[in-house]
Amino acid sequence: MIILNGGSSSGKSGIVRCLQAVLPDPWLAFGVDSFVDALPARMRGADGGITFAADGGVSVGAEFRALDAAWAEGVVAMARAGARVVVDDVFLGGAASQQRWRKALGGMDALWVGVRCERAVAAGRETARGDRVPGMAAAQADAVHEGVDYDLEVDTTHTESLECARAIAAHLG
Amino acid sequence: MIILNGGSSSGKSGIVRCLQAVLPDPWLAFGVDSFVDALPARMRGADGGITFAADGGVSVGAEFRALDAAWAEGVVAMARAGARVVVDDVFLGGAASQQRWRKALGGMDALWVGVRCERAVAAGRETARGDRVPGMAAAQADAVHEGVDYDLEVDTTHTESLECARAIAAHLG
Amino acid sequence: MIILNGGSSSGKSGIVRCLQAVLPDPWLAFGVDSFVDALPARMRGADGGITFAADGGVSVGAEFRALDAAWAEGVVAMARAGARVVVDDVFLGGAASQQRWRKALGGMDALWVGVRCERAVAAGRETARGDRVPGMAAAQADAVHEGVDYDLEVDTTHTESLECARAIAAHLG
Amino acid sequence: MIILNGGSSSGKSGIVRCLQAVLPDPWLAFGVDSFVDALPARMRGADGGITFAADGGVSVGAEFRALDAAWAEGVVAMARAGARVVVDDVFLGGAASQQRWRKALGGMDALWVGVRCERAVAAGRETARGDRVPGMAAAQADAVHEGVDYDLEVDTTHTESLECARAIAAHLG
Repeated sequence: MIILNGGSSSGKSGIVRCLQAVLPDPWLAFGVDSFVDALPARMRGADGGITFAADGGVSVGAEFRALDAAWAEGVVAMARAGARVVVDDVFLGGAASQQRWRKALGGMDALWVGVRCERAVAAGRETARGDRVPGMAAAQADAVHEGVDYDLEVDTTHTESLECARAIAAHLG
Repeated sequence: MIILNGGSSSGKSGIVRCLQAVLPDPWLAFGVDSFVDALPARMRGADGGITFAADGGVSVGAEFRALDAAWAEGVVAMARAGARVVVDDVFLGGAASQQRWRKALGGMDALWVGVRCERAVAAGRETARGDRVPGMAAAQADAVHEGVDYDLEVDTTHTESLECARAIAAHLG
Repeated sequence: MIILNGGSSSGKSGIVRCLQAVLPDPWLAFGVDSFVDALPARMRGADGGITFAADGGVSVGAEFRALDAAWAEGVVAMARAGARVVVDDVFLGGAASQQRWRKALGGMDALWVGVRCERAVAAGRETARGDRVPGMAAAQADAVHEGVDYDLEVDTTHTESLECARAIAAHLG
Repeated sequence: MIILNGGSSSGKSGIVRCLQAVLPDPWLAFGVDSFVDALPARMRGADGGITFAADGGVSVGAEFRALDAAWAEGVVAMARAGARVVVDDVFLGGAASQQRWRKALGGMDALWVGVRCERAVAAGRETARGDRVPGMAAAQADAVHEGVDYDLEVDTTHTESLECARAIAAHLG
C-alpha cells in the first residue's frame, strides 16, 4: 500500500495515474476525491459533512470523520485481501491524519509519500484547473505536512508527475 | 448494507442518489463505475482487464476479477467498521456474481435489490445518456438477473428513481 | 435550427442526444450548460455573472446577458453557415428570452420546442442527478414557459426522451 | 479574439483558464474539445466523423470538416457581436488549419499563439491525465505547428500555465 499526502493542486492525482502506468502490477487507486463522491450530496456544504469556505478553507464534521474512518479501514482491507492499493489524501489534520491511517493499517506496512509543491505554483495550477475553490491550494500547501513522517518526498514544483512516479516506484524496489 | 443489481442504464445510480437523499442517516455509495475508475487506465480494453465490445458486450479477465474480489471485501469491511454502505453492481455472471458478494459478506446481512428496466426502455435511456457503448443496456437487461435472489425488486420502466428509492427505504424499516 | 426550452431537469439534454441519434444528418448540439462552461470561472457566483441561490433560484447579471446575446448570434451564424444546430436553453425570462433568440435569428426559421415535465417529477430527477442545486427544477418548471410560443411541446413526465425526440424529428418532416 | 494552437496535452486548456482569470474583461472560451462534445455521439469513431487510432493518430472526415468550418464561422461571429473569445485548437492540418480560421475571420484580427511542449513532457502529462488515447501527445507535439505563423509562442515545458497566460495578456496590451 502506498499513501500519498499533499495539498490541493499539488499534483497527487497525476502522480497516482503515472504510478498505475509505470508499476508492472495493477494497482487500485482511491483518494479523498472518490471518498467525497461517495458521500450523500447533502453532506457537501453541511454541518457534520464537509464545507468549502469562500477563502479556500475546508472543515469537516463528526459524521464526515466517522465515515472517513470506516472508509480508511475498508481501503486497508482491500490491500489485506490482496489488492495493491495507492491512496492519495489531504492530511487536513497533519500528524493526526497520519495517525488515523496508522490505526486503520493495524500493523500493515505502507509507503508514506509526501507530495510537495511550492505554494505559489500550486495556487497557479488551481487557477489552471478552474474547478476548485480558489485558495485551497495556498491554504493547504504547507499545513498538511506538519508533523507527518514520510518514507520519501517528491516535489512537483519543477518535476513532472511521471518522474515523481518513477522515483516512488524505484523506492518500492 | 444495500446491494443493487441491474443492467447498464437501468437507473441504478439515480436510485442510489435518491436513497442517499431520503434515508435519514448518511450512506456511502460505491459501485462498479467507481471500481472501474480505480483501475489503471491500461486495464480498460485489455486482456486481463475489462473490454467493451462494439456490440455492447462486456468481458472481464482474471486480473479484473481478482481486484474486484478484493474491492468487494473492502467495501464490506467499511460496513463492518460502522458505515452504512449502498453498492450498485452489474452481475455479469448472474448468480455467480451474487455468490461472490455473499462470500465477501461472510455472515453479514445485506438487502438485495433487483433493478429492472424493460430492455427497449433501457436502450433508449442509453441513447439519451450518450456516454455508453450502444448495446450494453439491451445485452444486460435480463442476463444480469438470471438466478439472482432478491429481497425486493424495483422496475424503473414506469417508476421514477425517487419512488423506487422510497420503496427500498420503506423495506429497510 | 431547433430550439428546446425547458426547466432544469426537465430532460432537455437527453432529448438532444436522442435527436442527434435519430436524425439522419449530423446536428451540432449547444446549450446553456456549454455556454456557462465557456464563461470565466469567476463569473459563476458573482455579480454580473450567474448566481445559484441556495433555494434553487438563478439570477444573471449584465455581463452574463451581454455574452449570452453574442453567443446566441454565433450559434445562429453556425446554422447560417450550413450546420444543423439544436440548442437547449432555459428561458429564465420567459417570452423575453424567446425574443432574444428571435432577434439573433434575424429572419431565419427555427423549430420551437417546449419541454415540459411535472414539477414534482422534475424535482425527483434533480435528486437522482445529484449534481444540481436542489430547488432549481421546481422553481423553473412552469416559469420558463410563460408567454412562450412553440411549434410543438413534449412532456417527459410519462414519455421517454427517445419518444420525445422521435416526435420532434417527425415534425421536422 | 485569441487563437491558441498546440498538440494534445501541451497545456492549452490550463492556459485558457488562466487567461480568463488574469484578463480584466470576461472572455468566452471555446475549443476543439467543446466542438467534439457538440457532435453526435455516433460521429466519434466513425467514417466522416473523428477517429482516434490506437497509436494516438487522429483522422477526421468530410462531415467533421464541414461542421468544423461552420462552427469556426459561428465562433468568429460571437467575437464580431462583441464578445471577447479565446479558442484553443489542434491544427491537425498545420498551415491549412490556420488558413481555415483566417477564412472564417474574414478581415478580423486575431492574436495567434503557439503552445509548445517538448514531446516527451507532453507524453508524460498525457499519462498523468489518464483520459486520452496514449500517443496523441507525441504524435501531435511538432506536427501541429508546421507552417503556422504566430504572434507569440509559449512553451509549457518549463513554464507554468499562469505565466504563459500572463505573457499572452501582456502581448494583448
